[in-house]
Amino acid sequence: MSEYHAPLRDMQFVLNELGHLDQVGALPGCEEMAPELVEAILGEAGKFASGVLSPLNIAGDRQGARWEDSQVFTTEGWRKAYAQFVEGGWNALSCEPEFGGQGLPRLVSALVEEMWNGANVSFGLCPMLTRGAIEAIELRGSEHLKDTYLPKMVSGEWTGTMNLTEPQAGSDLAAVRSRAEPQGDGTYKVFGQKIFITYGEHDLTDNIVHLVLARVPGAPEGVKGISLFVVPKFLVNADGSLGARNDVRCVSIEHKLGIHGSPTAVLAFGDQGGATGWLVGEENRGLEYMFIMMNAARFSVGIEGIGLGERAYQRAVAYARDRVQGSEAGAKSRDKVAIIRHPDVRRMLLSMKSRTEAMRALACEVAAAMDVAQRHDDAAQRQQAQAFVDLMIPVIKGCSTENAIDIASLGVQVHGGMGFIEETGAAQHLRDARITSIYEGTTGIQAADLIGRKIARDQGQAIGLVIERMRAVEAQLAATDHASLGRIGAALGQGIGALQQAVQFIVAEFDGAVAKVSVGSVPFLELFGIVAGGWQLARSALVAELRLREGSGDSAFYQAKLHTVQFYADHQLARASGLAATVLHGGDAALAMDDAQF
Amino acid sequence: MSEYHAPLRDMQFVLNELGHLDQVGALPGCEEMAPELVEAILGEAGKFASGVLSPLNIAGDRQGARWEDSQVFTTEGWRKAYAQFVEGGWNALSCEPEFGGQGLPRLVSALVEEMWNGANVSFGLCPMLTRGAIEAIELRGSEHLKDTYLPKMVSGEWTGTMNLTEPQAGSDLAAVRSRAEPQGDGTYKVFGQKIFITYGEHDLTDNIVHLVLARVPGAPEGVKGISLFVVPKFLVNADGSLGARNDVRCVSIEHKLGIHGSPTAVLAFGDQGGATGWLVGEENRGLEYMFIMMNAARFSVGIEGIGLGERAYQRAVAYARDRVQGSEAGAKSRDKVAIIRHPDVRRMLLSMKSRTEAMRALACEVAAAMDVAQRHDDAAQRQQAQAFVDLMIPVIKGCSTENAIDIASLGVQVHGGMGFIEETGAAQHLRDARITSIYEGTTGIQAADLIGRKIARDQGQAIGLVIERMRAVEAQLAATDHASLGRIGAALGQGIGALQQAVQFIVAEFDGAVAKVSVGSVPFLELFGIVAGGWQLARSALVAELRLREGSGDSAFYQAKLHTVQFYADHQLARASGLAATVLHGGDAALAMDDAQF
Repeated sequence: MSEYHAPLRDMQFVLNELGHLDQVGALPGCEEMAPELVEAILGEAGKFASGVLSPLNIAGDRQGARWEDSQVFTTEGWRKAYAQFVEGGWNALSCEPEFGGQGLPRLVSALVEEMWNGANVSFGLCPMLTRGAIEAIELRGSEHLKDTYLPKMVSGEWTGTMNLTEPQAGSDLAAVRSRAEPQGDGTYKVFGQKIFITYGEHDLTDNIVHLVLARVPGAPEGVKGISLFVVPKFLVNADGSLGARNDVRCVSIEHKLGIHGSPTAVLAFGDQGGATGWLVGEENRGLEYMFIMMNAARFSVGIEGIGLGERAYQRAVAYARDRVQGSEAGAKSRDKVAIIRHPDVRRMLLSMKSRTEAMRALACEVAAAMDVAQRHDDAAQRQQAQAFVDLMIPVIKGCSTENAIDIASLGVQVHGGMGFIEETGAAQHLRDARITSIYEGTTGIQAADLIGRKIARDQGQAIGLVIERMRAVEAQLAATDHASLGRIGAALGQGIGALQQAVQFIVAEFDGAVAKVSVGSVPFLELFGIVAGGWQLARSALVAELRLREGSGDSAFYQAKLHTVQFYADHQLARASGLAATVLHGGDAALAMDDAQF
Repeated sequence: MSEYHAPLRDMQFVLNELGHLDQVGALPGCEEMAPELVEAILGEAGKFASGVLSPLNIAGDRQGARWEDSQVFTTEGWRKAYAQFVEGGWNALSCEPEFGGQGLPRLVSALVEEMWNGANVSFGLCPMLTRGAIEAIELRGSEHLKDTYLPKMVSGEWTGTMNLTEPQAGSDLAAVRSRAEPQGDGTYKVFGQKIFITYGEHDLTDNIVHLVLARVPGAPEGVKGISLFVVPKFLVNADGSLGARNDVRCVSIEHKLGIHGSPTAVLAFGDQGGATGWLVGEENRGLEYMFIMMNAARFSVGIEGIGLGERAYQRAVAYARDRVQGSEAGAKSRDKVAIIRHPDVRRMLLSMKSRTEAMRALACEVAAAMDVAQRHDDAAQRQQAQAFVDLMIPVIKGCSTENAIDIASLGVQVHGGMGFIEETGAAQHLRDARITSIYEGTTGIQAADLIGRKIARDQGQAIGLVIERMRAVEAQLAATDHASLGRIGAALGQGIGALQQAVQFIVAEFDGAVAKVSVGSVPFLELFGIVAGGWQLARSALVAELRLREGSGDSAFYQAKLHTVQFYADHQLARASGLAATVLHGGDAALAMDDAQF
């Protein structure tokens, strides 16, 4: 059974050769981020991912987390691995130095995160949720909350959760009914039931810090009446030691299709008189705070998709090299060959590889912009970077995850009948990946956010700037006399044209015909993701061709990159025109159907 | 938890209004197939599917089949259901009357089969495999084999299996190593291990009749040295009673991603001195016989895909009607609505519905041709129908199953977070569907068969005739002044154009550049499936528009059909040009990659 190996070569290519690390290294507070240090960090993270997390992945799936009398026990070996994770300082990587974090730029921490998810996505979810909770407290928590919780959450001694969903309130958080009653002493009593709480209960740490959406008395209806509370599993004494058990219990955990190692809890708040909670920020502004966390979490789920895609690809390649079956098409010899020689297997592998690399390069482009938006000296630069980040987050989340599902399914297919046998491990990746397009906002929710808030609202301005950058790369490709680059440029140009056509349609029609435009929202998201991934791969191809021309070594890597981009152009960018046609014309029939006619 | 309901209205539409039952009813031996009788048969089958098979589906998944000391125990309730199945005469439906079958045309039995698979695919596999074994014995078995086995296999008192795969011989049957030694008395001793044997061992019947591929001494290497044997679990005495236990044991069953109710056996033949077997037909011609069965089985797996797609769709629609979340896009009211009102949910549901109906209509076109090929008085008609069937079987198998996986995955997505929880049932459909694109020949194998044996070999003649029929429908659409039909016709026309372009490329390049063409084989299969499905839906739209114009009642059904076809044109046919471009240009990069560069 092959273990995960961090794709360090491609990560370094994206960091160093696509210029991201140069850009981020020039930002205030990132001066130490020399390529050698980053390489060392990624190397160590890769060892931890391969050596500690990856070997636990299958056990996490088979044994899973276990609920017993309000307690949840993680898979054997996970407590030890989590302790090593904390001890190694991995939890604090991207957190603010003020509370003990290492303040690594998002560009670097995103790649480290990809490794955790590639090695063991069920494990990776725990620090991912903790980080979201940390951000909310950092951003809007009182000094008391910051001092009490952040140092131990940053170190990983305690974990954090996000408590949004209730049975009647999933995608629609306006329907949240949990309530919080002020006690006059600065605390609240919180009551309600929350479902789908990732790591809502576990045995990895002594305390768990829940961030909970609830309504205060007299709060307005809908999303404008939701407040955010900190509700710890154990109350914390003034000296920082643990006090009384709070009134929050894990009623059960879910029996899920995948991510079995990650307990998904049903939490009951207030069954014994009320769970003690502390308000974060102001009353009735909870959703706003939660959305800041959620955007970070959405990006992280996109990274999950990339990690899972990489893992599924690695397993499929290993099998394809090993499995001997049939003879080679068009070859004179009838000798049996490894299936990696079969054209259709190569197609599947390159489809997996090219999409994973496209999404990785695109995610790093966005992560670098996050660092600029957070750290740049110039406010205008920060603002422009933030607009790009806001635009791209639904694309990273929606497209990486939909790609991951498809890539994992192709991974099963490469294995043939063995892919359907659980022992092989390929099926687990498909089962694990299947949640990623659902949680932290389904693909439909991402697509609605994209066409409404991110494109129609600014009349296509932000995406217009991205399209300009894409056109510049197209022009570079057109200016070469390299045949493959020329074909890639032509395919990219057609893709950009299709994207522009779709954007114009959305901007023109959104206000007057939002339902019709919305039918095409997911096809549009897919179109944008394909072209944006193509843009980044096209940049990669330009670099690879230059390196090959320079003869600066590692030609196998650059040659493979060129082939991979060419494949993507022929197999992915080729889909752009059809998707644009669907966006433009595909709305009427879906709306014309009477509900009863389905 | 909703149970499966047979889609009788759409089945009757396809049978009666697309003209298939008229055509088949005119064939010798099908004179009794009046619409009323067929309606009654389908109605009764639908009741059995909903009332008996569907309620056992989830238990089959959760409890699964269990192995203990060479024995396999099926899920509680399955023995009784199987007994009812046999008692009701369902097993004998499509078998020859000579051995007790009811001789139903394939057109009708295909729809009944869709119901078994829609209700409970793990159950449906058992009679499916038995039917394959019956066909092989009918076709090439001696009188002794026919008399001994067929009556009890036709009734369902005994079941049958297909034993092809060995650990080193999956897609490549040339690598089969099991051997059979003649004993001089007309019997053979069979030795070897077979894997992935569906219902290779179970407790539903007293005997199991294995059809086994093995090599006789001195047989040629490769596929020309494989023979086919009947190896019963229990030997059969001259009076038909069961004799000694044969030397075949179930070593284990697989732990699989899905179809848990269907035991997938590892069978050891000959560990105790040799399993007694009887040759079917002539030595060294086993693969030829097996391929006749396999073609029938491939069509049946395509039908599985349709049943699973229908089931996933039904569950998703039921949930979408029931689940209230969010308010309606573009509506003035902010009242919460059922999610079936949301544009993106409607898109998902119509994607599921339109593809399922396209595949059903296409499968019935092929099933009717099977009946013509088997029964028509005129040899030329039989031959032409057979050529069409041969061409279409990889398309039915490959496209229905790939669609089924995608449809089941959309079904999970419609359910949001609940789709990932196993209790909901949506995830089971995805897990069950995932095998269909693998067994009885992966999609890659279907695509290789399609472009090589079915298109390049006859220089595109058979597919040329299909394209002519498609063009005739396009002309009919173009001749109306109905706006929607006109748009459907235009989309179909573009799809046919793309298909023709791809066919010309394959015919021109196959001999000289088989590997390059093969990279595009699966995209081509998908292209052909999309356009062929569009052809059948376009026919459906013409009928629906006529009925609406006539005002002959049931306008809701016909209106829905029109919308469904329009949706398919905008969302599926729109993909045709991109797929053709991939077929034409997508081969080079995949072949240029060095194996080590993956």
